[in-house]
Amino acid sequence: MPTEFTMRRRVQFAETDMAGVLHFANYFRLMEELEHAFWRSLGLTVYLRDRRLHLSWPRVATNCEYYSPLRFEEEVDLKLTVTKVGKTSLNYEVEFRRDGERCALGRLTAVCCETNDGAFFPTAIPQDIRVRLEKGGEP
Amino acid sequence: MPTEFTMRRRVQFAETDMAGVLHFANYFRLMEELEHAFWRSLGLTVYLRDRRLHLSWPRVATNCEYYSPLRFEEEVDLKLTVTKVGKTSLNYEVEFRRDGERCALGRLTAVCCETNDGAFFPTAIPQDIRVRLEKGGEP
Amino acid sequence: MPTEFTMRRRVQFAETDMAGVLHFANYFRLMEELEHAFWRSLGLTVYLRDRRLHLSWPRVATNCEYYSPLRFEEEVDLKLTVTKVGKTSLNYEVEFRRDGERCALGRLTAVCCETNDGAFFPTAIPQDIRVRLEKGGEP
Amino acid sequence: MPTEFTMRRRVQFAETDMAGVLHFANYFRLMEELEHAFWRSLGLTVYLRDRRLHLSWPRVATNCEYYSPLRFEEEVDLKLTVTKVGKTSLNYEVEFRRDGERCALGRLTAVCCETNDGAFFPTAIPQDIRVRLEKGGEP
Repeated sequence: MPTEFTMRRRVQFAETDMAGVLHFANYFRLMEELEHAFWRSLGLTVYLRDRRLHLSWPRVATNCEYYSPLRFEEEVDLKLTVTKVGKTSLNYEVEFRRDGERCALGRLTAVCCETNDGAFFPTAIPQDIRVRLEKGGEP
Repeated sequence: MPTEFTMRRRVQFAETDMAGVLHFANYFRLMEELEHAFWRSLGLTVYLRDRRLHLSWPRVATNCEYYSPLRFEEEVDLKLTVTKVGKTSLNYEVEFRRDGERCALGRLTAVCCETNDGAFFPTAIPQDIRVRLEKGGEP
Repeated sequence: MPTEFTMRRRVQFAETDMAGVLHFANYFRLMEELEHAFWRSLGLTVYLRDRRLHLSWPRVATNCEYYSPLRFEEEVDLKLTVTKVGKTSLNYEVEFRRDGERCALGRLTAVCCETNDGAFFPTAIPQDIRVRLEKGGEP
Repeated sequence: MPTEFTMRRRVQFAETDMAGVLHFANYFRLMEELEHAFWRSLGLTVYLRDRRLHLSWPRVATNCEYYSPLRFEEEVDLKLTVTKVGKTSLNYEVEFRRDGERCALGRLTAVCCETNDGAFFPTAIPQDIRVRLEKGGEP
């Protein structure tokens, strides 16, 4: 069964644009906030610096489909699903719902990298992280 | 021949994140800045309010693939290509190059809508706008 | 006794910059998020459109002093104090604390305006809003 | 005579909010863009990493007064004035004009710091940088 994680998040004023709705680029910021909350729920952080390795997860692809605009102060139910854990890569899907209505659907592919001073080197996802991403809980 | 439009744009400090690179959501903001500069080059604005109709172009889908990270103060060559002008929808592709190297490739689908107080109603792209988008110049 | 309102807010990845800290402009976004949560706690919204009047609160002055940088995933305790309710203007102070340590202090002056299609006209703060801002609770 | 630097900058769509104007926090991003362009005009970069020292300029105080809202696609004339170069600190003033009308006035105090892994240590402004900031040209 795929790992899932949910969060409720209110649309903020500075995230709207002059068309009166959540700006389309900000959906990606909400996706990322959800992703990082998911990592914290696993007892992890997406920006590991307390190991010998410094790990980071740059994105290689992302997309979003928009069905219904979101507005200031609306509460959005975000649901993350881990759709694939590859050798070095990780795939998420994020659903945006308001009062049960699907308003948007996004996807994100990130790659596990060692980072060193702004450079990124793909590396296999460490086993303990893989287990938590696949099982969705603290070990 | 497809309509093209290019612009050079420097990566700003506030657009980077703690990983030292242009944050992935900000590629969509750059795509939009390019799109709006393209509209201005056609003698148009993306947010028409001087007609009987108020037109806006909400996004229905967008995506981006990332090949090489962009950093603070780097200059990026952005190239927009109009890939399709439908009855109500419009498709763009945006290429990000640094010193000739392709760093990212994004796509955007927008729909021509009449707007009224934050609501959006799809409508056929007006003929004069269609002509300019397809031919890429002022009439 | 001045009206106060508090909220805990985590620093998000996209809010950091390449220096590894919360970007200085984003403190103003946090101040505004707190302000709007405060209005909701009063049973109000900062962007009233369900009256005959459309009210908005454009800013006329703001400032911030920074004492200690805030970092990704840190939790910040934000405290808003209403420092003055004038005839048309409103003054807030916002304190940023992490584990009890004061990290920043911001101030904001907003003016009650009727808005009409992007124009703003100062107007006296309605009595029912004034009472709630001064007393800090739902009537 | 104080060092000055000017730049014209268009207001972008994503920088507006649902009130139809440039969001108040984004004035600080424009101030910073101007500041960094000023540094480049001096043959410098604000984020020096090619010396033995890594220098950064965290902000200790900033403020802005707003006189007239700025809107999508308007062109703003930004003027930076170096108002003080102290031993470790640097003071700027930034004026926002549209068609000659002053729309906002901001100020910024930054401190020269050595940075090491996200920590900041104040240090005297290096002499070659001080000379350029005071004289406003490449040496």
